[in-house]
Amino acid sequence: MSILVVGSVAFDTIATPSGRVTDILGGAATYFSLAASYFTDVRVVAVVGSDFGPQHEAVFQKRGVDTRGIERTEGKTFRWGGQYLDNLNEAKTDFTELNVFEKFQPRIPKEYHDTQFLFLANIHPTLQATVQQEMNGVRLTGGDTMNFWIQRTPKELAETLKLVNVLLINDTETKMLAEEKNLPRAASKVLGMGPKALVVKHGEYGATIFFRDGAFGVGSHPFRAPALPIDEVKDPTGAGDSFAGGFMGYIASQGEINREVLKRALFYGGVMGSFAVENFGTQRLESLTRDEIDARFQVFRELTHLD
Amino acid sequence: MSILVVGSVAFDTIATPSGRVTDILGGAATYFSLAASYFTDVRVVAVVGSDFGPQHEAVFQKRGVDTRGIERTEGKTFRWGGQYLDNLNEAKTDFTELNVFEKFQPRIPKEYHDTQFLFLANIHPTLQATVQQEMNGVRLTGGDTMNFWIQRTPKELAETLKLVNVLLINDTETKMLAEEKNLPRAASKVLGMGPKALVVKHGEYGATIFFRDGAFGVGSHPFRAPALPIDEVKDPTGAGDSFAGGFMGYIASQGEINREVLKRALFYGGVMGSFAVENFGTQRLESLTRDEIDARFQVFRELTHLD
Repeated sequence: MSILVVGSVAFDTIATPSGRVTDILGGAATYFSLAASYFTDVRVVAVVGSDFGPQHEAVFQKRGVDTRGIERTEGKTFRWGGQYLDNLNEAKTDFTELNVFEKFQPRIPKEYHDTQFLFLANIHPTLQATVQQEMNGVRLTGGDTMNFWIQRTPKELAETLKLVNVLLINDTETKMLAEEKNLPRAASKVLGMGPKALVVKHGEYGATIFFRDGAFGVGSHPFRAPALPIDEVKDPTGAGDSFAGGFMGYIASQGEINREVLKRALFYGGVMGSFAVENFGTQRLESLTRDEIDARFQVFRELTHLD
Repeated sequence: MSILVVGSVAFDTIATPSGRVTDILGGAATYFSLAASYFTDVRVVAVVGSDFGPQHEAVFQKRGVDTRGIERTEGKTFRWGGQYLDNLNEAKTDFTELNVFEKFQPRIPKEYHDTQFLFLANIHPTLQATVQQEMNGVRLTGGDTMNFWIQRTPKELAETLKLVNVLLINDTETKMLAEEKNLPRAASKVLGMGPKALVVKHGEYGATIFFRDGAFGVGSHPFRAPALPIDEVKDPTGAGDSFAGGFMGYIASQGEINREVLKRALFYGGVMGSFAVENFGTQRLESLTRDEIDARFQVFRELTHLD
């Protein structure tokens, strides 16, 4: 089955202890698409400027990603600069130039209307809601958000959360959104805002999925998947979006949506996040094989499973 | 088989968002003993003052812990005061009164010399080394330490680490000890200092055991066990020591020491830590049943295992 992602395509300038890169292809929709492309057909809605050339488009096309929804406009593509020199777990933003992304109005090609799965990457919650309403025939809607929207547009975000089936955010965002310091209690409050499941990403410690009672199966027991202890994290940029791509892509590749599928999806999310950080930008995600992915899935299993 | 723990018995004054308690029984050796007592015979070497009464001794004895190694001296028992009002993950120390603990010289009763397992709780590394040398016939020595000793007595600690088979410390301590920010690389450096296995405790995210290549089994793949997402952490004091008690106690209860045993032990460590924080002080650890422990082991398994 196919999945549609709506979000940013960007050029990133990044400094980490392993090196520096300038204006490399990035953005949430980019990382998500490439990660998801190993599991299912992917379609993208985004906006880029005239500096987005054939060599950038080729990155998507080599992975079979449908780029008809990437709108070209006059001006420069969204640019972000950040560094992880002191702390690989948290980006320090050097600059943000929204450029053509500032007036992004997602336009969904009519050929995309039969898409069965939807992922709303981190954009203004009102845009997320508009997209979801246009695509309201999908089987499952996943979504992301961030502290900026939690603090600046809480009402709009509250409306969007009613339309999102699975929300993927980190510990800090979960606690901020719920105004509650204890994670399980915060998760419970967030599930009361709309989503049937909440994936809390713990960075180097993995992720936990919390379920609304009875959603996708019986009871409300959470499930936790690890992250891989990695000797050298070259560039953490895009780890969370790659996680989301692996998670949603795996779900979209399955016939059913149930707890077992969501648990495995959580493992595949971790797997794709672990690949993403092994090299700068999208390099590692461009050249994987499904065998490599499944081998690492086995490593994740051995990392956590008794017997 | 039996296990000997050498460490502190204390009276703690604690404030958390759930309440306040004054001069309740605590200390690393206390939490360790009670947690380990559900798995194996436990012996304690510690020092207390004349304020340590029959009601305190009864806490150990009800759990069958051998207290012949608890030395009584003139003066007051070690006292610690701390709070977790802002952050349940990190204690803020209000006061430390070493009292009789200041001149603690562990004296091991000759009846303890046949003990097969040893745990060196967090005390001066030279005292840890002295105890280990006196007990050098043990099958396995576990140990703890903290930032204070890593910074103040690095040479003494280096000597002790040569005698410790399994070291149990947290993320920050691991990185500080190795002078390395990346956890797997830090773990590798710590394993080069002596221990055959290193358990890194991640607090609410569980723990990872790293193995020296070939130690206790084949290869050097790490293993990760979760912590339980708990709705109400009433008092985090003693969680790490209870983890160590569950971990070492389970190992001591098994005939063999191999990777499978160590992996299960990591789960039992998490289980005992999760019970410890459910109530103030040692209350929860005093009244468990083995059935409750095994039921929670199953919860931990379901929290992380696919299929």
